[in-house]
Amino acid sequence: MAPTATTTTAAAEQQQHPRKAVGLAAHDASGHLSPIRIPRRNTGDDDVAIKVLYCGICHSDLHTIKNDWKNAIYPVVPGHEIAGVVKEVGKNVAGFAAGDRVGVGCMVNACRACESCEDGAENYCARVVLTYNSRDRDGAVTRGGYSDLVVADARFVVRFPDALPLDAAAPLLCAGATVYAPMRRHGLGAPGSHVGVIGLGGLGHVAVKFARAFGAAKVTVISTSPGKREEALERLGADAFVLSTDAAEMKAAAGTMHGIVNTASAAASLHPYLALLKPHGKMILLGIPDKPLQVSAFALIGGGKTIAGSCMASISETQEMLDFAAEHGVAADVEVIGAGEVNAAMERLAKGYVRYRFVIDVGNTLKAD
Amino acid sequence: MAPTATTTTAAAEQQQHPRKAVGLAAHDASGHLSPIRIPRRNTGDDDVAIKVLYCGICHSDLHTIKNDWKNAIYPVVPGHEIAGVVKEVGKNVAGFAAGDRVGVGCMVNACRACESCEDGAENYCARVVLTYNSRDRDGAVTRGGYSDLVVADARFVVRFPDALPLDAAAPLLCAGATVYAPMRRHGLGAPGSHVGVIGLGGLGHVAVKFARAFGAAKVTVISTSPGKREEALERLGADAFVLSTDAAEMKAAAGTMHGIVNTASAAASLHPYLALLKPHGKMILLGIPDKPLQVSAFALIGGGKTIAGSCMASISETQEMLDFAAEHGVAADVEVIGAGEVNAAMERLAKGYVRYRFVIDVGNTLKAD
Repeated sequence: MAPTATTTTAAAEQQQHPRKAVGLAAHDASGHLSPIRIPRRNTGDDDVAIKVLYCGICHSDLHTIKNDWKNAIYPVVPGHEIAGVVKEVGKNVAGFAAGDRVGVGCMVNACRACESCEDGAENYCARVVLTYNSRDRDGAVTRGGYSDLVVADARFVVRFPDALPLDAAAPLLCAGATVYAPMRRHGLGAPGSHVGVIGLGGLGHVAVKFARAFGAAKVTVISTSPGKREEALERLGADAFVLSTDAAEMKAAAGTMHGIVNTASAAASLHPYLALLKPHGKMILLGIPDKPLQVSAFALIGGGKTIAGSCMASISETQEMLDFAAEHGVAADVEVIGAGEVNAAMERLAKGYVRYRFVIDVGNTLKAD
Repeated sequence: MAPTATTTTAAAEQQQHPRKAVGLAAHDASGHLSPIRIPRRNTGDDDVAIKVLYCGICHSDLHTIKNDWKNAIYPVVPGHEIAGVVKEVGKNVAGFAAGDRVGVGCMVNACRACESCEDGAENYCARVVLTYNSRDRDGAVTRGGYSDLVVADARFVVRFPDALPLDAAAPLLCAGATVYAPMRRHGLGAPGSHVGVIGLGGLGHVAVKFARAFGAAKVTVISTSPGKREEALERLGADAFVLSTDAAEMKAAAGTMHGIVNTASAAASLHPYLALLKPHGKMILLGIPDKPLQVSAFALIGGGKTIAGSCMASISETQEMLDFAAEHGVAADVEVIGAGEVNAAMERLAKGYVRYRFVIDVGNTLKAD
């Protein structure tokens, strides 16, 4: 989200957001995070104030604090995998009460008037307000969940079922929702099907778990890293592993998959992967490479195959995902860190040294000073 | 279909295919068509022998006789939009009887054992036998409907409902089925929706008709040719026309379409067309450009959009399409020609001078000498 013409002065923001909170902020493209006092708004009539307990570290947090996408509005307080408990609710809020275990994901507002909003697909609203580094409708820059307090409109708050642990469930709000929604929409993982998952990172490892929970007959991880083979099979319970740089393995798997969740963000040709699909197979595209994808029309037409993009998930899809995850015991594999370890975690994330999601223990380790 | 290692000698073919028929054949890459005597097999136990009355001229006929795809097995007798009446049936054939109005489309055989065949998706069988210029399972080269007689397995024969005129319905067997099947599968043209059709040729004009018959609220033709505007609106009853080279028109139509049927075969970037789709919109890809398509992942991910390839249709989809077309009064706009005019028609087709399909009056004009 680029900043809009509407900006607020510090004084105006202080008036609208008089409450003080603590956050971890990056101040420049070094991306170094340090504690900062940040303003939060009072709990409005439609709002839920949330004491943050855990916040996942998404790869997009890293991109944003480093200004990789040239849209950082410093200071940036990242975090859109927010889990906590309700502190208080506004007078119009019927669905939540103090003490409830709740979460906030990738977005905190939308226009509420367009066709996407009316269809309950706020994630595709052209004026969606992202949870951090975005401009809310009051002009204030949004600040995310690397913070002890967030205040959000109740329409953008979801509930964690009791069965989900908040630390391991926090990453479901972005990584989980992002894979769950298109897998459901496009029928991936229906009982008896064979699902491929390209890339075994934050999104990929959850996609493997959802595919299994949906009842897939076979789940195959496809990766460029030989080292992921054992992880995929032993740790995540995938049924098979295909090394995408091994022509023989790719050939053996050709034409066997009903669907593929493609979480890779490298700009590779899709042809070899499309060849893995059966006729009428579907590839869900989640990663955004820098360069345009090369797609031979014949690779799609010959087998009646589909490529479907997807971005985040609607609020109702996110809640459905959490309910499903609780019922089927799906959560992320996480490494919980203290707030003081966040810069070291970012360095490891940049190198891919995490299995599979860092989660900041905000509740116990993020202090005012 | 490239020729396989299995070839038949002329003598063997004569033994297996002792019946004589008349066809129009191209003998080299000039593509010039002239009458020829061709062998046809006797009516087998599972076969239907059909007296051909009409055969549509598909653009792929032109590509094949000119050897554009480097796979011509001369002499080529083209034609896969075949309409006629049953002459006789084999003893195992229960569904057809002499005098029935029937058709044969793009394929005449398949392996009958693979998953696609078992799923009733013979069009995606890796060993599908195309209606002409292909090798049948007995090794004989298939010859198409520019001929007074065809003999085909009953499983690959469809029935024309009485309401459909055979001349205008013949092109439905390729052009109609090719657009109908993916529109149905992917929900294009559902009541109230806005459907775009890129390209107003043989496929495109039928797509407009099917979209209207499905109950689309709005059908928009998108074309690079300003001259198609009046045709689209006046002749075909489209609701709107967008000149794709006019940035203002494209911008005005952005984000308005639920689905697009893309019949263009030029290798253009898909971005401007994907921008016409609403969130969750779907583009059906039917044309095969020579070069890979350029697709920005963001153009798909940002709106949760889909590109779906499709090739021909299964036999059951083809029959369903004919029944639907009869019920809703859908047929192709055709120019019926005599067999003697076929070479002139091919020249006009190459230049796009046909509104919208030539159909050869085989029954009245294709004679033995």
